[in-house]
Amino acid sequence: MKPALFLLAALLAAPLRADEGMWTFDNPPEDQLFERYGFVPTASWLEHARLASLRFSDGGSGSFVSPDGLALTNHHVAVGQLQKMSSPKKDFVKDGFYAKSRSEEIPCPDLEINQLVSYEDATERVMAAIPKDVPPAAANEKRKAAIAALEKDCTDKTGLRCDVVELYQGGEYWVYRYKKYTDVRLVMAPEKQAAFFGGDPDNFTYPRFDLDYAFFRVYEGGKPARPARFFPFKGAGPSEGELVFVTGHPGSTSRLLTAAQLAFERDLAMPVSLKSMRRSRAALEAWSAKGPEQARQAGNSLFGVENGLKVRSGEWEGLSEPKFFAKKEAEESDLRSRVAADPALQKAYGDAWEKMAAAVKAYGADYKRHRIYTGSRYRAHSLAPAAETIVRWVAEAEKPNGDRYAEFRDSALESLRWRLFSPAPTYPEMEEFLLADRLREYVEELGADDPFVKALLDGKTAEEAAAAAVRGTKMGAPAFRKALVEGGRKAVAASDDPLIAFARRADPFYRQMRDWYEDDIESVETEASERIARARFAVYGKSTYPDATFTLRLAFGKAAGYEQGKTLVPYKTVFSGLFARSDSFDGKAPFDLPPLAAASRGKVDMKAPLNFVSSNDITGGNSGSPVIDKDLRLVGLIFDGNVESFPNEYLYSEERGRAVSVHAGGILESLRSIYPMPALLKELESAAADAAGDHSMHH
Amino acid sequence: MKPALFLLAALLAAPLRADEGMWTFDNPPEDQLFERYGFVPTASWLEHARLASLRFSDGGSGSFVSPDGLALTNHHVAVGQLQKMSSPKKDFVKDGFYAKSRSEEIPCPDLEINQLVSYEDATERVMAAIPKDVPPAAANEKRKAAIAALEKDCTDKTGLRCDVVELYQGGEYWVYRYKKYTDVRLVMAPEKQAAFFGGDPDNFTYPRFDLDYAFFRVYEGGKPARPARFFPFKGAGPSEGELVFVTGHPGSTSRLLTAAQLAFERDLAMPVSLKSMRRSRAALEAWSAKGPEQARQAGNSLFGVENGLKVRSGEWEGLSEPKFFAKKEAEESDLRSRVAADPALQKAYGDAWEKMAAAVKAYGADYKRHRIYTGSRYRAHSLAPAAETIVRWVAEAEKPNGDRYAEFRDSALESLRWRLFSPAPTYPEMEEFLLADRLREYVEELGADDPFVKALLDGKTAEEAAAAAVRGTKMGAPAFRKALVEGGRKAVAASDDPLIAFARRADPFYRQMRDWYEDDIESVETEASERIARARFAVYGKSTYPDATFTLRLAFGKAAGYEQGKTLVPYKTVFSGLFARSDSFDGKAPFDLPPLAAASRGKVDMKAPLNFVSSNDITGGNSGSPVIDKDLRLVGLIFDGNVESFPNEYLYSEERGRAVSVHAGGILESLRSIYPMPALLKELESAAADAAGDHSMHH
Repeated sequence: MKPALFLLAALLAAPLRADEGMWTFDNPPEDQLFERYGFVPTASWLEHARLASLRFSDGGSGSFVSPDGLALTNHHVAVGQLQKMSSPKKDFVKDGFYAKSRSEEIPCPDLEINQLVSYEDATERVMAAIPKDVPPAAANEKRKAAIAALEKDCTDKTGLRCDVVELYQGGEYWVYRYKKYTDVRLVMAPEKQAAFFGGDPDNFTYPRFDLDYAFFRVYEGGKPARPARFFPFKGAGPSEGELVFVTGHPGSTSRLLTAAQLAFERDLAMPVSLKSMRRSRAALEAWSAKGPEQARQAGNSLFGVENGLKVRSGEWEGLSEPKFFAKKEAEESDLRSRVAADPALQKAYGDAWEKMAAAVKAYGADYKRHRIYTGSRYRAHSLAPAAETIVRWVAEAEKPNGDRYAEFRDSALESLRWRLFSPAPTYPEMEEFLLADRLREYVEELGADDPFVKALLDGKTAEEAAAAAVRGTKMGAPAFRKALVEGGRKAVAASDDPLIAFARRADPFYRQMRDWYEDDIESVETEASERIARARFAVYGKSTYPDATFTLRLAFGKAAGYEQGKTLVPYKTVFSGLFARSDSFDGKAPFDLPPLAAASRGKVDMKAPLNFVSSNDITGGNSGSPVIDKDLRLVGLIFDGNVESFPNEYLYSEERGRAVSVHAGGILESLRSIYPMPALLKELESAAADAAGDHSMHH
Repeated sequence: MKPALFLLAALLAAPLRADEGMWTFDNPPEDQLFERYGFVPTASWLEHARLASLRFSDGGSGSFVSPDGLALTNHHVAVGQLQKMSSPKKDFVKDGFYAKSRSEEIPCPDLEINQLVSYEDATERVMAAIPKDVPPAAANEKRKAAIAALEKDCTDKTGLRCDVVELYQGGEYWVYRYKKYTDVRLVMAPEKQAAFFGGDPDNFTYPRFDLDYAFFRVYEGGKPARPARFFPFKGAGPSEGELVFVTGHPGSTSRLLTAAQLAFERDLAMPVSLKSMRRSRAALEAWSAKGPEQARQAGNSLFGVENGLKVRSGEWEGLSEPKFFAKKEAEESDLRSRVAADPALQKAYGDAWEKMAAAVKAYGADYKRHRIYTGSRYRAHSLAPAAETIVRWVAEAEKPNGDRYAEFRDSALESLRWRLFSPAPTYPEMEEFLLADRLREYVEELGADDPFVKALLDGKTAEEAAAAAVRGTKMGAPAFRKALVEGGRKAVAASDDPLIAFARRADPFYRQMRDWYEDDIESVETEASERIARARFAVYGKSTYPDATFTLRLAFGKAAGYEQGKTLVPYKTVFSGLFARSDSFDGKAPFDLPPLAAASRGKVDMKAPLNFVSSNDITGGNSGSPVIDKDLRLVGLIFDGNVESFPNEYLYSEERGRAVSVHAGGILESLRSIYPMPALLKELESAAADAAGDHSMHH
């Protein structure tokens, strides 16, 4: 080992010292917290934080903030629901929504909120189901069947949503049990321009001036829920340097990938994905350009694609940094050399990295086809993916639970029904426009002779094929979708709906490619990952955290500015900064003041805090996460990460990567001086006052 | 030629299309201006701009802004004078200075202001003085003698300050004639914290919120001067995208250097210089840490070093960029291949690049010694360099004018006397402290056995040698310095002043190294540069501008924001941004509000413009330059460049490099609402109103 590498290895072997980690609640970073902040959360602290934290089915996080079921998340997590509630006449996205009383709160069409009520280690049970020395594909089958059985058994017994969560790349499996809330009503959302001031240019940047929040109320039995735990607001927020926690649901990270997997991402997967996303953006922009109603329809999807493009391109730049790769390779080489130094470890795990590299290589050979045949190719579409889901579901439904694709297992069906039968509006004309573009993309990428492309086009041009599929479909009606699913395979096979016919043509190719991937690639990768995870446990113990899995995690850090270029970025922003930035651009979009804020100039406290940054380790999915202090008060609301945090996907950096939050005081000030919401303000303030008098809050 | 290089060469051969260039007034960029902005300045426009523009002996630029001799420049150009006028009791730097009436205006101790009244091409005359086929050292002598004669002749005839300016690396020589103003009085300067809000972190950054201005009044015969031309204020400033001009005195650039010279800078000169500057900074910080009075004494020098370090390190980063070097090499290769393609050009100029490379290599071999023996080794000192100057001067004074070092020629003597006999305060204790550190540096860099180091130390430690040189010196008294110079070589040789003795020991080493450099290096480089310049004229014509030489230049551009990271930076800032930035840092230094601005919260118009950025091509020395519109109104005051403009030293970039100005409206708003200066405000407003009614202003 060269001296430089040796030094790095020594550093790696030392316990983590940064504000790093998205920790599971069963393994909080007690040593790091004690050493850095002199604070260790108790079991009741952790239980409180867990029960007050929420997961939103639209892909974000949130929390209970009052004893009457008030739930807080980001505007950009809520915006899908706002859009579905809106119409050409009432645009809640543009104008905001303000329920003055509980009777004015509007039910969301298809929002499900989950609360993690308990969890249990199931690693032994999953492992026990996999016989020794079977080939990877067979082991994969067994593993999936065991997981499905565990989930079904749990749901049957508890009535809860039960998910088996794979942690540490298969090093552990846990059963997570969720209470589901499906009667969720919108209470208040500011105008999109207030939530997203600065638009795409400011997205992922800081200093920032966004009121990116929305309030919902969770109902049970037609009445406001009475959650066991909630986070009372602390308007003063964090002081500079103060310890703060984020309890949320980071979606996914890739920190435990091998060097071979990372190189695959860097050299193939990400460039291909970026190209396709740029194409999606162009198509959505073209649709938006047709008029204000079209722009409204495409708005949320366009935001999603722009967002994704910024993140992915930032991640890709980080990944392409030679220094980054050197660090990852040094980490891997340290682990491998420690494994090699122990004959027992070497025998059990030594060849896992080569196995992984071989699987990655095999995947790369057919990556593009796999991505297009099975991938998330319908970004911003709703009808076509629903049709494909129905075609697939009715076939899967006939299989034993354990043999089905994971998303059609019994434990997932309630949520699937909820989404698939949603009464949310659909936009067939936009769908046709986007589908035609997607089909053109397939032709360009795979060639017109590709059998899948041929099947989809069915002898037509891309435009004709899209028109044929979408025009005349009845898939827009939830009842029609429901009837098809209830009619089962026979009804679907007999349907003359053109979009169902289109989905039927796609299905065999999808299955062929997904089965190849699961049997020949994923199974080998999973098996190699599991062994590498066990090797890591054997060498380093459970001193680290697993990659993100859209499950509840605890991240700690401090409110802190950072260096940028040659200057300093402050830890917080204030309301005058919002007006300053708008005036600096002469009020030009996307820096035009939100109308209600403009009307409140003079009323708003210009020194009141608006946003702040902290060193917590977060990623996509954390949107809407509460930021709490050590007394379990809500001091902020995660809504973004800065550009410097993009490489977080692969490597946390405390130096300049930051989580960006709406300041609790900024929310309160806006409810006081910009939005006329006295009842809501009072509810938050009473909850805070009650909690302050409640000694059980202090741990 | 490879295709990629060919394409680049084609681009390079095309006329400049960017907002690029620091143009001499004899060769304004008419084609670029017409094509980009549809405006071509007339001869009377150029004359007005030239006569209203000023050069400050403290190393900056400025302009006349009223018919009563009011002159505007930066606070950081004025700060040396402010410091000299201050005392432990009255700190004009910290508190600002406010003359309510003309009788309160205070004379500056040693500020000279120059106005370029005429200029003339002298290339033929310089060239005629150099015989053909003499060796470079002899040619260099002749060249210098010819320049000295030209300057003396001009001064004798006109009574003006006359400088022969070398342009295009010796491609042209011009006589520039300056009117000198030496009765300059301070009118107003804001507090340093207002001029330099954000301190070192914000220096060279943008968005910015600085009132970096100061007003002087130029007097003639004890009365306010009545300048022939001035720039009236235009408080509305530029609109976004508007054409603006900068007429100022950029100090130096290195855009016409050869690849060999650039590599020398990158690999040797800059790393050595950065190391020494970091050491200077540490020494000045150590002195400042001793107490508030020490901090005051070191303040301006520390600012200068920090400033210089940021610039140089930014330049060095730019220079170290492989892409940058590739572009420079492609430019050189294009010129060389065009020269090679023409036998006459090849014969005259073909070997100039190899000659240059050889001289650079020879210089590199003894660079460190040359730098220490002759360099600007007394940053922030005043007594030691004065002593060395006196020792050298009395010896040079005995030589014929043309044989002297350039700075002792007759034409330079008046300004030299002015500086050397200045009554500005000196700080012997700081001097001793800094000199000791400098001597330690020499020991570390050259070794204790180096003859120069030995001579300076004179058998003592660095601390002892510094104490011996500074304690007991009478050099602090202007009359003592004057007497020594008047006493000539004899008086200096006989002086038992310890600092003069120190300087006498240094002098022979200085001369030896300077003569070696001038005869063996500079002469070869100058000759090679001249030939390369002529080759460039022969190939491209006079389609470009010369490197900066601290002489008057015209730069054009537009008020425009830019992209930074993933977001947009606005073209201007407003007063609310100042308060926002301070509040975002909870008012912590260096983001504490200047006291008078803090007291004016509520009175100041928060939407009023404060600073703005434009694409004009500037560099150090442009500080204090007026920014004017095409109607010759002052819309701003250059005070900085952003970090993205650092590579400007070598290569202009319009994309993100920006000049940073105080907005004319920001100055007026501050005089209205923060500083109680009604007479000054009225003078500026009357001048603007009169000019608006004066049709001769419109060209």
